[in-house]
Amino acid sequence: MLSKNQLKYIQSLHQKKYRQQHGAFLVEGAKSVQEVLQSNFETEVLVATELFYKENAHLTDRQRTPVEIVSATELTRMGTLESNNAALAVVKTKENVPLLAEPDEIVLILDDIRDPGNLGTILRIADWYGIRKILCSSTTADVYNPKVISASKGSFTRVNWWYGDVVQVLKKTVQQPTNVVYGAFLDGADVHSISFATSGYLVMGNESNGISTDVAQYVTQRVTIPRYGNAESLNVGIATAILLDNIRRISDQR
Amino acid sequence: MLSKNQLKYIQSLHQKKYRQQHGAFLVEGAKSVQEVLQSNFETEVLVATELFYKENAHLTDRQRTPVEIVSATELTRMGTLESNNAALAVVKTKENVPLLAEPDEIVLILDDIRDPGNLGTILRIADWYGIRKILCSSTTADVYNPKVISASKGSFTRVNWWYGDVVQVLKKTVQQPTNVVYGAFLDGADVHSISFATSGYLVMGNESNGISTDVAQYVTQRVTIPRYGNAESLNVGIATAILLDNIRRISDQR
Repeated sequence: MLSKNQLKYIQSLHQKKYRQQHGAFLVEGAKSVQEVLQSNFETEVLVATELFYKENAHLTDRQRTPVEIVSATELTRMGTLESNNAALAVVKTKENVPLLAEPDEIVLILDDIRDPGNLGTILRIADWYGIRKILCSSTTADVYNPKVISASKGSFTRVNWWYGDVVQVLKKTVQQPTNVVYGAFLDGADVHSISFATSGYLVMGNESNGISTDVAQYVTQRVTIPRYGNAESLNVGIATAILLDNIRRISDQR
Repeated sequence: MLSKNQLKYIQSLHQKKYRQQHGAFLVEGAKSVQEVLQSNFETEVLVATELFYKENAHLTDRQRTPVEIVSATELTRMGTLESNNAALAVVKTKENVPLLAEPDEIVLILDDIRDPGNLGTILRIADWYGIRKILCSSTTADVYNPKVISASKGSFTRVNWWYGDVVQVLKKTVQQPTNVVYGAFLDGADVHSISFATSGYLVMGNESNGISTDVAQYVTQRVTIPRYGNAESLNVGIATAILLDNIRRISDQR
């Protein structure tokens, strides 16, 4: 049985302040928990219903993960999902280390993406398109937010991210003239006609305001998704997917 | 002031049953209401805060729309949004008439898209890519659901849709061998290498199960978005956007 203190600890992790203080975050629901138990994340404790544990006990062997069995009602009460009849894992956060673009690698930069749902979707898309590294501006939503983890559908276990000073990173990057920094704008070059490089950075900007002025000055190639109808804009997750599809398509043809 | 009966009527439109019975639906929030007042939809009544009405009164002239002024609190209470300090419009639904693909036109078919958020996103994407017609299976979410209207970000005023028997439509379509029916599958041809036609149908299937067997037999070309990483799937809205981007890219090159 969970102690009162354990319960209090788990509920505190709904908030960023306590996630940072304790270096831990929550992973909820059957699929996400199964994925995290098979990843290189370290699980502090697995809280599961009896049924989920019976079917997934083997996943806890490798790390000898401590397990607590609770009812679905208790599980739902301590977590953030509307309902959860499977499991919740308390998982250690990773160290924040810089991840830069290697040769033949595209790294995604998120400049002030505020919505956790969008951030989670972007993780899933990055994972689909084989993007391994994401640099988040300090104003971007917290990846460890339970909504981000949930929206990423397990992709948080495969994509790596770090929070850093986007301007500083780009300043160094563009000192080498071979480095390309793509940025999504409304007035850039048509992505259907660009010959994309296979290495460099792709910057996606804020949901309402796009890429900030400070960051924009380091973008070496502004790109735009052509519009054929009348919608004013595309959601940033959708735009990220379309841009990555165009970038990967080009590298196919080489 | 709104009468009790008017209030009851507005709140009844949260539910599909009453939307169908009354032939009316709700449009909520500043942006969506502005768009609907400028569209060819007929507004029964505009319920607005004083501030919104002052700034937008000119939009009500054309149809001599009846207006009721209420507080933001009252507005929020009668609607479905978490908060609404602008306006809500009660709008007449349109007649359900078949919309088929004309020459040089791609029509979207939604086979059992259940999530209102996904459906709204798809409307917005269709609008961006200049798709004018959508055929929804009877099991697809109701476009007039307030969540769909809201997620479409005004695109519901520019894209036309109807509910019909997908199998019957496709049966007739494929009798003419020049007609192409594209369908999104996991085992189709790579969309980066296909030469898409400029007219025909694109079928998107259910969030969990994809395109149903009954519909699949009329798909003449299965297509797949290539994966470069490890995510299991893409959200159906994202997939629709990527497919339409590939379809439009091809027609650019002609």
